[in-house]
Amino acid sequence: MDEITFAVLGTGGIGRRALEVSQHKDALTPVAACDRHGVAIDFDGLDVDELLAATEGNIDSEVATDGGTGAATAESGVKQHGEDRGVVASSQARPSEDAIQEIIDRGDRIDAVLLALPNYEHDFIPRTADRFVDGGYSGVMIDVLKRSRVIDMLDERSDEFEDAGITFICGAGATPGLLTGAAALAAQSFVEVTDVDIWWGVGLKSGYEDNRGTVREDIAHLPGYDIETARALSESEIEAIIDDHDGVIEFEDMEHADDVLLERAGVCDADDVTVGGVLDVRNDEKPTTTTVRVTGRTFDGETATNTFQLGDDTSMEANVNGPALGYLKAGVRRNRAGEYGVFGPADLLPGF
Amino acid sequence: MDEITFAVLGTGGIGRRALEVSQHKDALTPVAACDRHGVAIDFDGLDVDELLAATEGNIDSEVATDGGTGAATAESGVKQHGEDRGVVASSQARPSEDAIQEIIDRGDRIDAVLLALPNYEHDFIPRTADRFVDGGYSGVMIDVLKRSRVIDMLDERSDEFEDAGITFICGAGATPGLLTGAAALAAQSFVEVTDVDIWWGVGLKSGYEDNRGTVREDIAHLPGYDIETARALSESEIEAIIDDHDGVIEFEDMEHADDVLLERAGVCDADDVTVGGVLDVRNDEKPTTTTVRVTGRTFDGETATNTFQLGDDTSMEANVNGPALGYLKAGVRRNRAGEYGVFGPADLLPGF
Repeated sequence: MDEITFAVLGTGGIGRRALEVSQHKDALTPVAACDRHGVAIDFDGLDVDELLAATEGNIDSEVATDGGTGAATAESGVKQHGEDRGVVASSQARPSEDAIQEIIDRGDRIDAVLLALPNYEHDFIPRTADRFVDGGYSGVMIDVLKRSRVIDMLDERSDEFEDAGITFICGAGATPGLLTGAAALAAQSFVEVTDVDIWWGVGLKSGYEDNRGTVREDIAHLPGYDIETARALSESEIEAIIDDHDGVIEFEDMEHADDVLLERAGVCDADDVTVGGVLDVRNDEKPTTTTVRVTGRTFDGETATNTFQLGDDTSMEANVNGPALGYLKAGVRRNRAGEYGVFGPADLLPGF
Repeated sequence: MDEITFAVLGTGGIGRRALEVSQHKDALTPVAACDRHGVAIDFDGLDVDELLAATEGNIDSEVATDGGTGAATAESGVKQHGEDRGVVASSQARPSEDAIQEIIDRGDRIDAVLLALPNYEHDFIPRTADRFVDGGYSGVMIDVLKRSRVIDMLDERSDEFEDAGITFICGAGATPGLLTGAAALAAQSFVEVTDVDIWWGVGLKSGYEDNRGTVREDIAHLPGYDIETARALSESEIEAIIDDHDGVIEFEDMEHADDVLLERAGVCDADDVTVGGVLDVRNDEKPTTTTVRVTGRTFDGETATNTFQLGDDTSMEANVNGPALGYLKAGVRRNRAGEYGVFGPADLLPGF
């Protein structure tokens, strides 16, 4: 595959790890990264080591409240409490009042944009996409969002993406993403899928310290919380919730977009998909093995369950960022062939 | 997805089951089926029930020796010893001296052609593809071949396929096919894949009686045999080999194209892939659980193994034909977007 240039919006846990993993991938050149404070752009390829070293510790733990307004403020994910503010701590970056716009303005040289922005308002990613449409961008946009309802908001923009020449890949992290794809592939044995059961395990080593924004999103799935109340939690309130659970929090019936992404690919009804998991923020080991179980009926009348399991030593970060970049590559291939609109992970696999 | 018309070359075990499974799939209309004796064509859609009922028992157990010559003989997979010869037993079919050519001549109304032709000479599928190129076909061709060396022969034709507008999907059954795709997806956690271990189990219920051609291909993998000597075996000689093994034959280091298909997708070296399995032709139950193990190194330095397992009650037929039609759909999508050439299963998944 020809060389692919990509930009990362947000240099929190996911954005930084995506940059790091891209160093191990053929044909991927990171050319831009931004956060609310500034932007680094180099079409010869960012010096990822320098950028990561300079910005390490800039944890995406606070929530932007001005995201996606289109106003003259930078909008991405890192808020830094130290002297050097976010990505600007890198010698390759400079402050910007509107870092996202700077990337949009250079969009003709950027094949793909990874939106590494967890934990924002539901419509933040769709509104950011609107800005890229308005700015004349035609390329791949890809997110690692979790929430089912955001998919609908992106689907509403399908015509605009098609007119613009944008291939939008949504939900392309671990779950949804890798595990959605695994479910779609496992479904190939069946003519009818009756149940998809996704169960994940995440331990401390998987990057809790560096992914507090993601933990906050998970807490939003607990009974009594939603994304708005989770956003309003202080750091100490989050710690208190974790203490209440002795560091091990179990989630059931999470609103993960795997459900709508599998339904839109024709694999099963969204209601047939359940997502849950266990987060242990005090132990390195995963508290449970991440497993996808796809149960269905074969053409010859049998009922069976196909299973996909991730090795316990694969971190959440590995399982988010590898697939995100893998789907990004697949998206660029679609885009270069002239396929525009909204795609989920299962849309990039064999049809059902 | 818009409606897809497809033809099946060969109405042996795989061809017939592909027709049957397609009845459970949205948007797939079988419009043609042929064997060495004749051809059935109906652009309103074949009556699959009638065709299957009329031809049941026409087992692909004999090997064509005149395949792919381009001469005026039909070339596909069923040889029938009864009164009704092959597909002609169906009221929808008629005899033909060159059934494949009849399908080529109607190629402009056929979106995809499934080559359900195991057990032929290595170059039979490539030479059949040549005939479609020569006949002006532009659409999808898809096979469920097993042998690594055939992929190279197809790759040599890449330019011709691209010029013709043909999207050729090779090795799109169970293994290679479903399991190759699972390996490519499981690889997404890693930045380097060190081992892919594919281990299959097939029991009698999986369709041995109806898939003797496939069993013959498997025997060619046993020590002391190759595809030529296996082709020369009589039915009774095959039975004797099975008796020698008490009905349970274990295969190691098989020449399955999973290896070259994963290498061409950049997942790992072909040498890192091993394929083996156990065939039990006397018991319904699978003698072992079909399992794909992908071992690799993550970006953060861990070594782990991701695992994909097929439920024991999924038959080989379910695991070949569902994926074949799934990849066929994916191929049509690629073709309609203008992507031509040779694709393996892993090329249709997220990039590595």
